[in-house]
Amino acid sequence: MAITAVELKHAYRLLNHGPVVLVSATHAGKQNIMAAAWNMPLDFDPAKIAVVIDKNTYTRGLIEGAGTFAINVPCIQQSEIVMQVGSSSGKEERFIETDKFAAYHLPTFPAASIEAPLLEGCVAWLECRLLQEVENQQKYDLFIGEVVAAYADTRVFSNGRWHFEGQDQLRTLHYIAGGAFFATGDSLSIPPATL
Amino acid sequence: MAITAVELKHAYRLLNHGPVVLVSATHAGKQNIMAAAWNMPLDFDPAKIAVVIDKNTYTRGLIEGAGTFAINVPCIQQSEIVMQVGSSSGKEERFIETDKFAAYHLPTFPAASIEAPLLEGCVAWLECRLLQEVENQQKYDLFIGEVVAAYADTRVFSNGRWHFEGQDQLRTLHYIAGGAFFATGDSLSIPPATL
Repeated sequence: MAITAVELKHAYRLLNHGPVVLVSATHAGKQNIMAAAWNMPLDFDPAKIAVVIDKNTYTRGLIEGAGTFAINVPCIQQSEIVMQVGSSSGKEERFIETDKFAAYHLPTFPAASIEAPLLEGCVAWLECRLLQEVENQQKYDLFIGEVVAAYADTRVFSNGRWHFEGQDQLRTLHYIAGGAFFATGDSLSIPPATL
Repeated sequence: MAITAVELKHAYRLLNHGPVVLVSATHAGKQNIMAAAWNMPLDFDPAKIAVVIDKNTYTRGLIEGAGTFAINVPCIQQSEIVMQVGSSSGKEERFIETDKFAAYHLPTFPAASIEAPLLEGCVAWLECRLLQEVENQQKYDLFIGEVVAAYADTRVFSNGRWHFEGQDQLRTLHYIAGGAFFATGDSLSIPPATL
């Protein structure tokens, strides 16, 4: 297993296909992680992303306090972890107000540019600086981050592209509801010549 | 083929797994449609969605003029159409400033609550009322809509759930870049008992 840096101009490709993500943050000696199905790229350069963080989540306060957060992109072999830490449907799952890294014995490694811990076993990570947008945060639970560093597991992402063939357990996840996911499926390519 | 209304409280499930969508709008006798990979649910009830609409797109002016738009969720058998109408990567694909419904002979049917035409052959549709957020629109190209009606093709979505088994050509699409997509893949379910 090797991790490679992803060029910031290609960071959007880590989220472009719509996977569920885990958002981690730490502040004032506390840390936590939560699931967020509602996320998307927001810009190419400088790379920005948007993610919905419910007011009921413990992680939200850490993000607001630290001004930074990490997006971890989990894979199939972590699907139980996603459910464990998951409050991705906002109002459907229970919220756990403790340090879920500790509660579920989740191994982490340090980020380069921010304090938030990164979850081992994920296939991509984006370190983000919160762009304070008080109205969006209050009115829509909408958080916008500038991506300051990005990485991926080279087994499934390199040269700016995902390649999951032969790595089914490392495929990313797309959350539906009630514990149901889709795996990222087969790739297909439409040649520009058909335009 | 039958289309069913989707309860508005379940409308988020049409986008929760992160598919690429086609955004259609009409205003003052003009209509258009564009691809948007950058979209996500934003709230359950009232159902809201967020979508990034680049300033260079012709459809954006129609949305701003009409105050309404439709989200069409395309499937594998429409992947060439997605590329044809696609400016989903914002700066990578060419923009077509004409009526793409006419240029590509795309069949439509009328929406119930709004003027925007809905694209035949898609597997879900969300009729949206634009929630005017001038700063988000100008600063981030971020458009927020309240979902006022939603529908799905019953062959792949019913009782609030997607079910693509045996309907591979109707699987939804996840856009990557440069004409490459992932199909929505296998479903997996993590029982709550494992929590």
